[in-house]
Amino acid sequence: MNINMVLYIIGWILEFEAAFMLLPGIVGLIYGEPAAALSYFGTAVFTFLAGLLFKMKKPRTMDLYMREGFATVALGWMSMGLFGAIPFVLCGDIPDYVNAVFEAISGFTSTGASILSDVEALTHAGLFWRSFTHWIGGMGVCVFIMAILPLMGGSTMNLMKAESTGPSVSKLVPRVRDSAKILYQIYFFLTIVSIIVYLFCGLNLFEALCISFGTLGTGGFGVLNTSVASYSAAAQWAIGIFMVLAGINYTAYFYLMQKEWKNAFSIEEVRWYLLLVVVATFAITLNIRPLHAGFEESLRAAFFQVASIVTTTGFSTEDFDLWPSFSKMILLLLMFIGACSGSTAGGMKISRVVIYIKSLRKELSTMVHPRLVRKLRMDGHVVAEDTVRSTGVYLMAYVLILAVSVLLISPDGFDFTTNFTAGAATFNNIGPGLAGVGPTRNYFDYSVFSKIVLIFDMLAGRLELFPLLILFKAGCWKKY
Amino acid sequence: MNINMVLYIIGWILEFEAAFMLLPGIVGLIYGEPAAALSYFGTAVFTFLAGLLFKMKKPRTMDLYMREGFATVALGWMSMGLFGAIPFVLCGDIPDYVNAVFEAISGFTSTGASILSDVEALTHAGLFWRSFTHWIGGMGVCVFIMAILPLMGGSTMNLMKAESTGPSVSKLVPRVRDSAKILYQIYFFLTIVSIIVYLFCGLNLFEALCISFGTLGTGGFGVLNTSVASYSAAAQWAIGIFMVLAGINYTAYFYLMQKEWKNAFSIEEVRWYLLLVVVATFAITLNIRPLHAGFEESLRAAFFQVASIVTTTGFSTEDFDLWPSFSKMILLLLMFIGACSGSTAGGMKISRVVIYIKSLRKELSTMVHPRLVRKLRMDGHVVAEDTVRSTGVYLMAYVLILAVSVLLISPDGFDFTTNFTAGAATFNNIGPGLAGVGPTRNYFDYSVFSKIVLIFDMLAGRLELFPLLILFKAGCWKKY
Repeated sequence: MNINMVLYIIGWILEFEAAFMLLPGIVGLIYGEPAAALSYFGTAVFTFLAGLLFKMKKPRTMDLYMREGFATVALGWMSMGLFGAIPFVLCGDIPDYVNAVFEAISGFTSTGASILSDVEALTHAGLFWRSFTHWIGGMGVCVFIMAILPLMGGSTMNLMKAESTGPSVSKLVPRVRDSAKILYQIYFFLTIVSIIVYLFCGLNLFEALCISFGTLGTGGFGVLNTSVASYSAAAQWAIGIFMVLAGINYTAYFYLMQKEWKNAFSIEEVRWYLLLVVVATFAITLNIRPLHAGFEESLRAAFFQVASIVTTTGFSTEDFDLWPSFSKMILLLLMFIGACSGSTAGGMKISRVVIYIKSLRKELSTMVHPRLVRKLRMDGHVVAEDTVRSTGVYLMAYVLILAVSVLLISPDGFDFTTNFTAGAATFNNIGPGLAGVGPTRNYFDYSVFSKIVLIFDMLAGRLELFPLLILFKAGCWKKY
Repeated sequence: MNINMVLYIIGWILEFEAAFMLLPGIVGLIYGEPAAALSYFGTAVFTFLAGLLFKMKKPRTMDLYMREGFATVALGWMSMGLFGAIPFVLCGDIPDYVNAVFEAISGFTSTGASILSDVEALTHAGLFWRSFTHWIGGMGVCVFIMAILPLMGGSTMNLMKAESTGPSVSKLVPRVRDSAKILYQIYFFLTIVSIIVYLFCGLNLFEALCISFGTLGTGGFGVLNTSVASYSAAAQWAIGIFMVLAGINYTAYFYLMQKEWKNAFSIEEVRWYLLLVVVATFAITLNIRPLHAGFEESLRAAFFQVASIVTTTGFSTEDFDLWPSFSKMILLLLMFIGACSGSTAGGMKISRVVIYIKSLRKELSTMVHPRLVRKLRMDGHVVAEDTVRSTGVYLMAYVLILAVSVLLISPDGFDFTTNFTAGAATFNNIGPGLAGVGPTRNYFDYSVFSKIVLIFDMLAGRLELFPLLILFKAGCWKKY
């Protein structure tokens, strides 16, 4: 393990976090919250100094093998959470540090699970920071650093692997740095467009900014206690549509940029994703039809919640915990499936589910025709054996972590639905679950130990398991 | 597909089932239940004739490739359920045919999920048949036929593969037929011993027979409404211990028969299994300690329920749905893990879970040392790549089927805990779940459609997915 290199990059991550913290500080100044502004500026300085400390010892080699890449991202994200929580405590928004870390990690991992029952009591600076962490974490802070700094030559691929989503990283262009730039260009563009649309739909600038960060980062922190239920129907449609757009594989947008229309619309994963949204929306609309006066209302509620859950955002316009079992079960399945790889969404990702189904079909084929050798294909290309194997192991790790997490939080005494969906909603980076952690409830009542377990789940989910698990592998820390 | 061969073997299965049905008929005569006796004798004749019909066209070749083996077992088991349900309806024990099929399939798959609220109202013949189906299905009816008839030369391995449990079949001896014989010898021996022990613990002969069938087949149908709660403490300990014995890989018993003591005690899976039982018992004992007056009571209750759930039997001495969340969650995890492969238990099986954990460790190893090639080993032997791959695909199919099943039964409107544990308890062949399908409740209230889904789950779980899934594969039915 090239520990100096790991610390060096974590140092850079903290420097960038310090810079990001200036924004909520400014928001605090604008809204006349001097204490809050001071908390953010103060923490920014502290974080900057900490970053300098980490960067002090320049590494002799810039090599970054997979284990360093993974460990760096895992530890870097933990550090972001630990530092990012400080201003919440200082300005009094969240007095308890563990709760503040829960909220910060929930933000960076774009989960949106909250320990707060009254978000309207927060400072504007705090609300802004909560939402902004979604935006930073959505596409990934290392990807951001890569896009900006000519940091580490060619060996940054492993950082990108750890932060981007899905079973395999699709470099859009040969150079990693250029890929990072393109991703952030698309991300930035979508964010700007959504802010403008939200403004037109009646949100004020502050709301438009925060909700837009939550939408594009697929986070889910709102600025009102009612999440987005009190916004206009037009705004709800708009937010729903942008959530769906945020869940699309960014490769599709890259093809659009390149004017390769045919390629953009032929990505298998994106087609399955859109089909899933349509089918789920349709099924739920019919199922919840009796709960609403008009058809449009049912359709909007169904579409919004489907978009919110499948993209693992977690905004809500209704308390879906009160919906019929069938609708709730559909939403619960969507929680696990998630949206496209190469997007900012959490969950298993459509492409993994497609690989699972294709693997199963292939296995049955082999049983029927033992001598027939077939390869697993996606978008016409053979999927590498390594990717298939690793995707299978991902499922094993996924089931194990989820099962152990739910077991570990069960001593708090909540019912099974609450514990299971708390595990699922944090691990899949959604936010709200059902019952005790439903859309109108929160995670405050869990014990400190359980909160730490759920924090682990949020990180493990966002970084797709392996970067976090590798930290526990003894050999990982050995020197070369 | 050699359809004639498939039909021919199903014919044999029905002949054997007809013979088995004579036993409950005799029980009916002994207990002065002429109507019941007549139902069983009548159905036996009918089933025998049906079997003759199936066997009429002797197949030209006796070849039995994997797809025929799997399809035969899947269709054979369905037929057993469809015919086995008839006497329940005829003698009035279960007037509704779908309910009767549910009960029969639950019996043969050694699940023990019931639609009955008052089993004491059944005829003795009916109670005996319910329990006897566990015994038949526990080790497998085709394995039984193989042990008795010199049926099909060398190509019976694929029948055994479909009926025996675990990721790979361990032929105890080179010839499949001899292996089948040895398995049934051990099974028979354990059954006899348990009957004797139960008699000594105060059960009457009828109870001892039925409970013993349920124990060794890891089924779980009892003959009293209180399951086994009203038996003596000694009897509960004895049943608990025999359940644990029933969950052990039969290879261990084979080694004992061969006096290869060292081999018997060094099977990795068996060690993990016993460790799991001890740890789970210990944890639950502490957790439920306040619910009982004495320590022995807590220990006995914890041990019994752990043994019952991990072996997927499903007897109960207490309503564990009233236990604390932590204990319930442990039991729920045990439901999924199950006991050893090569036993009569359901669930994923310890060996699969061990393979998953080892695959994960191997994957992390590869990330840390990319050039190091390691093989996955069990009991010192390298596990074949095919087995590892197939075990991975098993998990994918497992998760998919469970998720879809719970979705399909959710329109009935029960809560999530009920639906999820109903799916888990049938799919893992346990019987009771939590909440609405807890130990004191039953599956009666589910709709006909949901019952069919759960019947599918019981069969899919018992036959370990692939034999049932292959029926849906288009190519499976093609002629050569």
